[in-house]
Amino acid sequence: MSEGNPIVELAKRRGFFLQSADAYGGVSGFYTFGPEGAALKQNIEDTWRERFTIQEGNMEVDAPTVMPEPVFEASGHLEGFDDMLIECPECGDSHRADHIVEDNTDIEDAESMAIERVEEIVAEYELTCPTCGAGLAGQAIQQFNLMFETNIGPGSSSPGYLRPETAQGIFVEFPQLAEYARNQLPFGVTQIGRAYRNEISPRKSLLRVREFTQAELELFIDPEEDEPDLERVADVTAPFYPADEQQSDDGEIVEATVGEVVEEGIVADPWIAYYLGIAKRWYESIGVDMDRFRFRQHLPGELAHYAADCWDAEAEVDGDWIELAGFAYRGDYDLSKHAAHSEEEFTVFKQYDEPVTVERPTVDPDMSYLGPEFGGDAAAVADALETLAERDPDAFRDAQADGGAVTVEIDGQAYAVPVEKTGFEIEEVTESGEHITPHVVEPSLGIDRALYTVLDHSYREDEIDGEIRRVLELPPEVAPTTVGVFPLMDRDGLADRAREVVDRLRDAGLAVTYDDSGAIGRRYRRQDEVGTPFCVTVDYETLGEGDDSDLEGTVTLRERDTTEQKRVPISDLAETLTELRDGDIEFTDL
Amino acid sequence: MSEGNPIVELAKRRGFFLQSADAYGGVSGFYTFGPEGAALKQNIEDTWRERFTIQEGNMEVDAPTVMPEPVFEASGHLEGFDDMLIECPECGDSHRADHIVEDNTDIEDAESMAIERVEEIVAEYELTCPTCGAGLAGQAIQQFNLMFETNIGPGSSSPGYLRPETAQGIFVEFPQLAEYARNQLPFGVTQIGRAYRNEISPRKSLLRVREFTQAELELFIDPEEDEPDLERVADVTAPFYPADEQQSDDGEIVEATVGEVVEEGIVADPWIAYYLGIAKRWYESIGVDMDRFRFRQHLPGELAHYAADCWDAEAEVDGDWIELAGFAYRGDYDLSKHAAHSEEEFTVFKQYDEPVTVERPTVDPDMSYLGPEFGGDAAAVADALETLAERDPDAFRDAQADGGAVTVEIDGQAYAVPVEKTGFEIEEVTESGEHITPHVVEPSLGIDRALYTVLDHSYREDEIDGEIRRVLELPPEVAPTTVGVFPLMDRDGLADRAREVVDRLRDAGLAVTYDDSGAIGRRYRRQDEVGTPFCVTVDYETLGEGDDSDLEGTVTLRERDTTEQKRVPISDLAETLTELRDGDIEFTDL
Repeated sequence: MSEGNPIVELAKRRGFFLQSADAYGGVSGFYTFGPEGAALKQNIEDTWRERFTIQEGNMEVDAPTVMPEPVFEASGHLEGFDDMLIECPECGDSHRADHIVEDNTDIEDAESMAIERVEEIVAEYELTCPTCGAGLAGQAIQQFNLMFETNIGPGSSSPGYLRPETAQGIFVEFPQLAEYARNQLPFGVTQIGRAYRNEISPRKSLLRVREFTQAELELFIDPEEDEPDLERVADVTAPFYPADEQQSDDGEIVEATVGEVVEEGIVADPWIAYYLGIAKRWYESIGVDMDRFRFRQHLPGELAHYAADCWDAEAEVDGDWIELAGFAYRGDYDLSKHAAHSEEEFTVFKQYDEPVTVERPTVDPDMSYLGPEFGGDAAAVADALETLAERDPDAFRDAQADGGAVTVEIDGQAYAVPVEKTGFEIEEVTESGEHITPHVVEPSLGIDRALYTVLDHSYREDEIDGEIRRVLELPPEVAPTTVGVFPLMDRDGLADRAREVVDRLRDAGLAVTYDDSGAIGRRYRRQDEVGTPFCVTVDYETLGEGDDSDLEGTVTLRERDTTEQKRVPISDLAETLTELRDGDIEFTDL
Repeated sequence: MSEGNPIVELAKRRGFFLQSADAYGGVSGFYTFGPEGAALKQNIEDTWRERFTIQEGNMEVDAPTVMPEPVFEASGHLEGFDDMLIECPECGDSHRADHIVEDNTDIEDAESMAIERVEEIVAEYELTCPTCGAGLAGQAIQQFNLMFETNIGPGSSSPGYLRPETAQGIFVEFPQLAEYARNQLPFGVTQIGRAYRNEISPRKSLLRVREFTQAELELFIDPEEDEPDLERVADVTAPFYPADEQQSDDGEIVEATVGEVVEEGIVADPWIAYYLGIAKRWYESIGVDMDRFRFRQHLPGELAHYAADCWDAEAEVDGDWIELAGFAYRGDYDLSKHAAHSEEEFTVFKQYDEPVTVERPTVDPDMSYLGPEFGGDAAAVADALETLAERDPDAFRDAQADGGAVTVEIDGQAYAVPVEKTGFEIEEVTESGEHITPHVVEPSLGIDRALYTVLDHSYREDEIDGEIRRVLELPPEVAPTTVGVFPLMDRDGLADRAREVVDRLRDAGLAVTYDDSGAIGRRYRRQDEVGTPFCVTVDYETLGEGDDSDLEGTVTLRERDTTEQKRVPISDLAETLTELRDGDIEFTDL
């Protein structure tokens, strides 16, 4: 994935993406999407929104990228969002120790090893600095937190961090979001936005960057009751790679439907299976090659400690399988953590079908007895009685049975209170429901990686008239430009007529580009290379047929992948192109 | 704009926006857009993109929010992007000194005063801390840089900043962007994205925040040749408030067309005038009340030092005029600065109509003379001769005329060289063009402020059946939801039929919400309050008429602003609603 990679070269030359601030020598891990890339990214985001938010009836939010420290104390990122940093004693460059191990030995997954073990391996294998070649043995490895830190307001009293995932912007607002959902589970909240990882050494172009765009869905469910509408995706087929197959010597990818993997217990949680189905359809629709795509289950050692199960969507790019998305069952981890740290309610009230009568033990200690008896300790004894009643009402019942005393302990000192002085009672209370902490199912997708994969998978070279043709076979729905419009020549009124066609198509909401420069063949090549699925040429036949005033007549419509051409009346052009873009008709139908 | 403000209250309760991380006590200046707000924001951005990017034929890019330090050394933000910070000696709270002056005296525009003068005023007026009331006289005022700072990668050797404006992400990529534009001026580059200002004391809800969304257009022009197509906006009328009217005792707002203000020189630059016209149309289309809107020219003292002219779009909100956008003529300031700091070319090659022959003075010093004569200084003398030939060829011509010597100076030491030893010549060179630094015209709009203004201007209360009705009269094009669909009752198959209608409308790309809870009147109120322009009720008439299988029959379609209702066939519903949303038909046309 060096600069010699044809995708990276094409991306820069034609305006998909380029390393940012090149004039200042560039900054590792930051990319700017050029005109073609920004449009492709926008289209990919729009289709994600359509599929994961609108069609699913979820709510979308848009939260800040800078968040205050307490959020990340609760989420665990302040403590545990680290990579292993090793600094070269000679040149001073910083590297990821686990990457140096993985790149230079047969050892896999060094990331999940203890620091001490990685230090041993570095010494054992006499590993060296990738920059200058100096030996790294004996260098201490440090935990480096991957959040970008800053200060909110003047001074350093209010640290803030660039969010490492968009999810936290949803979790912290759960109390209010539950209100918007009228406290009815299940409900889903989505967000598309920037997230940040201060990588030690970014690499692989867009695949490991410091600033990226995530599209996340947090679905809040009642784990005891809510089930997905599996029928909607039951017949979606995909390649699944379960943990046990990965661990087996002759492990295989299982080609199956979503219905089957749930039935057979390959994917344990039906919610996860449901979103794998939705995601598979989406990845296919944006142009990921399904022969280079799979769902891989996390191995037990890979799982985050809070996740009961997790599957990744993976794509093959340049011979490596890269992670496109994760689908995790996070339980009540996130909401419980935020509830504990913020001391706010992160629950919903779950109404019972029928009110339930429960017994609630209470005490009402006789202070006129406790006061003289225990002096300054009387109030503490009363509190201890109340706690005991909640925890162990039988202690009071036993004392009542034998007319004895209840004993509480405060700072190692025992205090016996006659049970009749405690005012112990069992009240019957009718409850209409209870507060429950919803569980979270999280499909978390990376937009930049999806975009890179789509470019890689849609790129091909063929030969036309003895010349190499570079084509991006992007699906029309996501292509930056839907149609290129060319006048055959820049004279005889052809250009004016072509510009009128451009205006008409733009008014119909199509993404159009106009090009009158160079031979027609070269203009086709330019559009092929940026994935424009259709081109329209205004020629002398158009002029001959048409009446200037109402734009009648026909034009040549050319399809990118087949390079076939058909003549289409200008009056039908906008509708035809819209239907072609939306997949309502095929070019062969014309 | 306190929490008691009806817009702020409605915004939180109904999910437009709320202060972020409320569970942790909130963080000043950071807001989260809830489901309604995120959808409204997205729609506003989409219409901006349509108007300023697509219809204008500009290119959109998407750059990182974190940028390295050299960018802001060049842009001037590191040096000059400051506010006046005063810290209370008692409670330690930080405040903007200029705001304290403006809020507590009759003095206006303290922001543009010298720090020493503001310190004097604080002492003179005995101004006090807004938090605790302690006196601030004698407290030193500091310049506080408003950029959020962070570190890129491990250590502190590579400082980065959250961009204070999206514009810099465009300027730094100019060399590559010019390639994408095939070096043809004029061309425009747009970007919608986050920008940051680490405000000392954020206030006024969404109007002064620390993280916000900008929509900027940088138009690169050849100042000597390029002119806007003014005809496209010549008949747009707007209220203009020129600098001289602001400075006059009986100054008035001038109601005029864009054509007139250019004709009469009220707006000096036609490009600025052009974008004022485009922007006026856009603000009107998203729901800004044109009776509370104006374009105000910057006073000479307000102008940034690089700006030749600047106009703001302003809206009246809660009795104050707030800035919505700035339209600045920035000259070659930005590109020149980046060229100087990066030592890269930030120019385009401008082809002359005809090649031009120019004289170019050159030297070719005779080193066999200079060497023995000047020893170790010979090379420096040769360089100095070359520089002198470029700057002052006449020095050589004069020497040639009198057969004398040319004198150059190096470190205060004069060296005389006989002119025949310099190899001085005038070459005739034919040049086909020249490298020019384009000028920049910048319309820069704030999305959050536009959104707040739209909410404020579209809010009204009326009375229906003796009850107060709160309505957001949002234009259908930007309303978060286009149509609410209700079953009259949640029984007798009405709900099923209503859900079928929802699916059909969603398939047609409409933003739909379903509600079956509570009385119909209450459901209408809920939609009125979030600005949903249309509601559809499925009632017994629908069922009676319809044939279950093909969804025929009619429903009630109700318009928000008039509360009028009409019966519409289900078969026409999607198309009718689409046309209503896009403004192709009016409700009264039905």
